[in-house]
Amino acid sequence: MERIERIGVSLEKELLCVFDKLIAKQGYQSRSEAIRDLIRQRLSTEQISNPQARAVAAVCVVYDHHATKLMAKLVDLQHSHILQVISSLHVHLDEHDCLEVIVLRGRVGQINRMGENILSMKGVKLGRVNLVAADRGL
Amino acid sequence: MERIERIGVSLEKELLCVFDKLIAKQGYQSRSEAIRDLIRQRLSTEQISNPQARAVAAVCVVYDHHATKLMAKLVDLQHSHILQVISSLHVHLDEHDCLEVIVLRGRVGQINRMGENILSMKGVKLGRVNLVAADRGL
Amino acid sequence: MERIERIGVSLEKELLCVFDKLIAKQGYQSRSEAIRDLIRQRLSTEQISNPQARAVAAVCVVYDHHATKLMAKLVDLQHSHILQVISSLHVHLDEHDCLEVIVLRGRVGQINRMGENILSMKGVKLGRVNLVAADRGL
Amino acid sequence: MERIERIGVSLEKELLCVFDKLIAKQGYQSRSEAIRDLIRQRLSTEQISNPQARAVAAVCVVYDHHATKLMAKLVDLQHSHILQVISSLHVHLDEHDCLEVIVLRGRVGQINRMGENILSMKGVKLGRVNLVAADRGL
Repeated sequence: MERIERIGVSLEKELLCVFDKLIAKQGYQSRSEAIRDLIRQRLSTEQISNPQARAVAAVCVVYDHHATKLMAKLVDLQHSHILQVISSLHVHLDEHDCLEVIVLRGRVGQINRMGENILSMKGVKLGRVNLVAADRGL
Repeated sequence: MERIERIGVSLEKELLCVFDKLIAKQGYQSRSEAIRDLIRQRLSTEQISNPQARAVAAVCVVYDHHATKLMAKLVDLQHSHILQVISSLHVHLDEHDCLEVIVLRGRVGQINRMGENILSMKGVKLGRVNLVAADRGL
Repeated sequence: MERIERIGVSLEKELLCVFDKLIAKQGYQSRSEAIRDLIRQRLSTEQISNPQARAVAAVCVVYDHHATKLMAKLVDLQHSHILQVISSLHVHLDEHDCLEVIVLRGRVGQINRMGENILSMKGVKLGRVNLVAADRGL
Repeated sequence: MERIERIGVSLEKELLCVFDKLIAKQGYQSRSEAIRDLIRQRLSTEQISNPQARAVAAVCVVYDHHATKLMAKLVDLQHSHILQVISSLHVHLDEHDCLEVIVLRGRVGQINRMGENILSMKGVKLGRVNLVAADRGL
């Protein structure tokens, strides 16, 4: 069970009012929750700027499943990096295109590089490596 | 079968040399492929800045699976937006935390809002809405 | 004189501890100050995603000052949009390249478009439109 | 005088058509110019991810000029880092707020840290460190 602390934050009434409106629109049920999320987001950004930090990446790629041998190559690559690749999800977008989300785990530098290798494959049209910090403490 | 055009691009020798080094490191097998990817990336960025454009989102969330009722609420939300939610992938990160990737499809404005609703749920620690353009032509 | 409110925020001890380390490194003298900045940053991001919101942009461009007529064209463009252009700063980077920061003010959509017009000029090598929200309340 | 090379790029007719529309809207006068800019932008992103690379930063800050001693502290900080600070531009936004753009030059890691120190000062409301690569070759 994690211990909870309570801290005080002072801020301008007008700023608070604009913030309250935004978080209500987003669906937050308490200010604490919204502020904790801002803090975690900031810390996550900091961690994933360090190539040595542990992280998880959701590599999203869009490709035409008719592209010669791409699917086979993608599967090969995933199996040859079995320690980093956790899982993948395949979605049919239309008669040509698929979205594949490949989840990697490892050091930031390492999974970024592996993500770039996936994005640069012939037949991959669009893609992005989306990192999330995975060090405890967040 | 899509028709292919060939265009000429002039650029400084030194710039080309630095670019060739980068794309070799990334794993590209041809300059055309690397330049096509830059173009598609630029067009995707443009499209997803338009709230009316069609897009796909991979919403990545990290949460503690002990968080009271969060999993049930996440499933509820997905079923009540069945038209937008395509699929989801669940990964166990450690004894506490899970990563869930929820794939949404719809208009940019609509899936952004839905993504924010997911991120603001009590118990969700970290997350991000990652959009990819889904209009044809890319 | 703005009125100040004081609110309470509860968060995990471990999260607070990691946050305290980060903000000490950044140079913050109080947690309130750091949390206010996270809140303002979030609100600014929200505002500048609305094309109708008022904003300020610092358009940074790098160009070779030998590029034919670019400097004259840049000055022309600034004078023909005198309502949006506030000021500019010119820095000599090396024997070829200059950095120019052009400050624009107006609606987000309008100054984004004007920024893009500047970046697309022949001779401009690198650049970016950096928006900052200018609606009161932040 | 830099030597110019001409390379061929093959791409789908439909992709080219969408790209041509975008760059016409942005104001580009040739495809080569637009593609060179995409390449330079990509290389700049790569360079500024390396803490040791040389770069220029335009640090934009918004602050209330009534904030006690902030202006004096900002000037102090700039003079005590005279090797990195090149120049600054001050704009009056309204009766309270000013925008100041401070141009720094140095290693990415070093000017990022200095930028963060500026953003964390008491009285600075909003701000951002905007990096531009300054290694030759772009």
